[in-house]
Amino acid sequence: MTTENIEPNRRRGRARTSGSETKLPEQRPFKQPRMKYAPTKVLSDDEIESIHLASLRILSDYGMDFLDGDARDLLQKAGAKITDNRVRFDPEMVLETIKTCPSEFKLHSRNPDHTLNIGGDWMAFGSVGSTPNFIGFDGIRHPGTRKDYQDLLKLTQVFNVIHFLGGYPVEPIDLHASIRHIETSFDALTMTDKIFHCYSLGRQRNQDVLEMTRIARQVSHETLENEPSVFSVINSSSPLRLDTPMLQGIMEFSSRNQLIVMTPFTLAGAMAPITLAGALSQQNAEALAGMTFTQLVRPGAPVAYGGFTSNVDMQSGAPAFGTPEYMRTAMAGGQLARRYKVPYRSSNVCAANALDAQAAYESVFSLWGAIQGGVNFLMHGAGWMEGGLHSSLEKFVLDADLLGMVSAYLDPIVVDKATLAHEAIGEVGPGGHYFGVQHTQDRFRDAFHKPMISDWRNYESWQEGGSPTAVTKTTELAHKWLDSYETPTIDAAALEELQEFRARRLAEGGVATDY
Amino acid sequence: MTTENIEPNRRRGRARTSGSETKLPEQRPFKQPRMKYAPTKVLSDDEIESIHLASLRILSDYGMDFLDGDARDLLQKAGAKITDNRVRFDPEMVLETIKTCPSEFKLHSRNPDHTLNIGGDWMAFGSVGSTPNFIGFDGIRHPGTRKDYQDLLKLTQVFNVIHFLGGYPVEPIDLHASIRHIETSFDALTMTDKIFHCYSLGRQRNQDVLEMTRIARQVSHETLENEPSVFSVINSSSPLRLDTPMLQGIMEFSSRNQLIVMTPFTLAGAMAPITLAGALSQQNAEALAGMTFTQLVRPGAPVAYGGFTSNVDMQSGAPAFGTPEYMRTAMAGGQLARRYKVPYRSSNVCAANALDAQAAYESVFSLWGAIQGGVNFLMHGAGWMEGGLHSSLEKFVLDADLLGMVSAYLDPIVVDKATLAHEAIGEVGPGGHYFGVQHTQDRFRDAFHKPMISDWRNYESWQEGGSPTAVTKTTELAHKWLDSYETPTIDAAALEELQEFRARRLAEGGVATDY
Repeated sequence: MTTENIEPNRRRGRARTSGSETKLPEQRPFKQPRMKYAPTKVLSDDEIESIHLASLRILSDYGMDFLDGDARDLLQKAGAKITDNRVRFDPEMVLETIKTCPSEFKLHSRNPDHTLNIGGDWMAFGSVGSTPNFIGFDGIRHPGTRKDYQDLLKLTQVFNVIHFLGGYPVEPIDLHASIRHIETSFDALTMTDKIFHCYSLGRQRNQDVLEMTRIARQVSHETLENEPSVFSVINSSSPLRLDTPMLQGIMEFSSRNQLIVMTPFTLAGAMAPITLAGALSQQNAEALAGMTFTQLVRPGAPVAYGGFTSNVDMQSGAPAFGTPEYMRTAMAGGQLARRYKVPYRSSNVCAANALDAQAAYESVFSLWGAIQGGVNFLMHGAGWMEGGLHSSLEKFVLDADLLGMVSAYLDPIVVDKATLAHEAIGEVGPGGHYFGVQHTQDRFRDAFHKPMISDWRNYESWQEGGSPTAVTKTTELAHKWLDSYETPTIDAAALEELQEFRARRLAEGGVATDY
Repeated sequence: MTTENIEPNRRRGRARTSGSETKLPEQRPFKQPRMKYAPTKVLSDDEIESIHLASLRILSDYGMDFLDGDARDLLQKAGAKITDNRVRFDPEMVLETIKTCPSEFKLHSRNPDHTLNIGGDWMAFGSVGSTPNFIGFDGIRHPGTRKDYQDLLKLTQVFNVIHFLGGYPVEPIDLHASIRHIETSFDALTMTDKIFHCYSLGRQRNQDVLEMTRIARQVSHETLENEPSVFSVINSSSPLRLDTPMLQGIMEFSSRNQLIVMTPFTLAGAMAPITLAGALSQQNAEALAGMTFTQLVRPGAPVAYGGFTSNVDMQSGAPAFGTPEYMRTAMAGGQLARRYKVPYRSSNVCAANALDAQAAYESVFSLWGAIQGGVNFLMHGAGWMEGGLHSSLEKFVLDADLLGMVSAYLDPIVVDKATLAHEAIGEVGPGGHYFGVQHTQDRFRDAFHKPMISDWRNYESWQEGGSPTAVTKTTELAHKWLDSYETPTIDAAALEELQEFRARRLAEGGVATDY
């Protein structure tokens, strides 16, 4: 970070996204798409009701293991039946408790232009999160480093179609676990000005990240509690278990009114029933239990319903993504979330090892499931490969392009006198052409979405150009966009305070670990 | 064709698709998917009405050029206003006339197992049609030959997910134009037993192909008229013109009660207004004019509404496919077809030159538009590349795999006591796993769709396997499926009569051409 990016007047950050001063290639402005089409119902309302009832019955007959005493105490007070770690829920209590979940709210970024609307018909797209490995320009897969992490932060920042940072876009294992959350949050808060994620790995980490978020925004504790500004994904350890750090994460974040994205990871045939209806019932049971717990911690705390049901290859046990099973459960998940009037989280995922046709079709099928499923909060929107085992710089760019196309698809067709073009059609007449008419001339620059990667040259020109595949173009683009990165402006006081906090917490050793 | 494929009892053909005698790799049975989900409305009902009214106004204010005197005479008798080639339509006449278009009907194949339902919630997927060039295993693009044509016929026949032959899957230019329709129809009728297409290139060709279809089915002229058995795609020469051979094709086919697929080719910014609403209005005007004409030729003759609106790259003029514009117009086209209660035709198209991520994402985006648009009749389902300028053996296999996944997506999730799996969830309990339980064991073989190409191995195994991309797997599969081809059985009398017809018409020189 150089001093020219530090500014006393933080509002100057605004100009950066649109002004002539930017090195960024041309792109659509930062804008959340809205879902103006009706989401696809793959299940009837009656079938959704059956799954709803089945999941309540799971929670009442079998319950769920909550591996934290404070959490169980809170649940017991609310009327849940506790036996050892097991928590059984009365259906009425669940339904009554989740009534306070908000349907729509804002997530406040340190750059107000990047504050997000979550819920309703709003969509937000995040970058890949939580992969252990990385593939950059050398094509060699290796465990993630801080350098790789920072490169992915840069891509997250430069693309307007990426609205938030969805976790560590790769896990930087060269940072010791005791201080990783401090260094990565410092990077996220200074190298980007978009909403970011906090891993729930013990109370202290949640507290540190929340404090750094507050400092970056330069707001009071009270304002931070009124304005959710950071999120944590809570995965149940399916089947039917929530472990200690996850429960502590909910207690820390919900009590401070920050966003919990409650996401069971229910692979049908492995951690969930092999039947999609069964896997969805279990997903829904775990989601309801988590949502209930957030509202017991603090009624009205923001929570999203996460769907992450897919299938495994029953021959090898390998998880599969972007499959027909994935598409349908992604859509059914959206129906369930809307049943409870909470925002819906889904993902852009694939199982491909290479940036080939498989990576593309699995990702687009995932997006088809998510978008037609009415997703509000899209995790792993850009850069995810290999079932989440590596992030790829080039896949990030490919996905950013796919998300751009999806955003354009979500712009409804304008139907009015001018667009119906009656006069132009008469002017051109049978057998004519439209290139030259004024109606075309007035609109040709911006009439159509311009994808980055698609090569529409004729075959001969394409051959003369060396017969490049999408990979070639994607590599070029990844260099170009990375090179265009500029550190976003940050309030000088915020930066100084962040640096002090970081230095102090590093000196204290961060969070003690036993390794 | 060897004699063992000729059989006196044509019903034996049945066994071939499911019996142990087949060399075919495992696949889902031949079955038309049905659209049980509500198609996506990208336009409101009011907006659809605006486009409907705008197109009627185009037909009444400007009209359309019909380049055939017989056609104009028929239109004049029905009340259309004729000035030279121009035909202006009264909106009432159009709406009254198209009322006789059937909403749903069958297309009868010579193998009754391959007879198709067209319309309603039925879907049928066809192979690529009408490309001038071909790329096979040598990777070299060249003008299509009969050998290439036959290889694509074989793939059309072996894949159960391909329900019909959508035209010449590549144009065999080594067959002289005067006899091309005879040789290609002979090949189509003997090498496949699926519904096929006839090009409307003059009355005689329509008559020849229809007669060959009748012979192959061994039915009377009367039965053939009662049972539509072949189709012809009619493209308007947009904007607003129908040329002589196309009009003759409608007169020949509609008068014999065969299917016309009326498809304006309206590239926004070139042959249609640059605005999507304008392009859709023109598409709709041309489709309505064609549909009206079919019903004047013979009320009740089957006709489908074809949507083929896409955009061009306004820098180069190159057509683009699988774009956000394409997706939305594909869906709007479905809304318009349903407005008129006629079957809807769309396509699986891409502009890619190589079998890369672009080919995959443009195709899946096209399928997203078509399927969510409620397509009934999908043209170019498998094998289309380069905006229709070449067919590819390997793309055919990739697309067959995509269509298989789409078919599986269209299978609604079963929700009942068994699939909700309450007992299995209790048996496994918190922290357990599902691999071993009976509920899984009873279902693991067929629980999930098995794509052909997707490589779900872990990274290490995949690397040891040579880091294959999807192209490698697709090439292997193309060889395997081509090698598995078996000539379908054919009735001995039908074959003999077909051979006689062919010999006679070849001896007559086919259809005279001036080249």
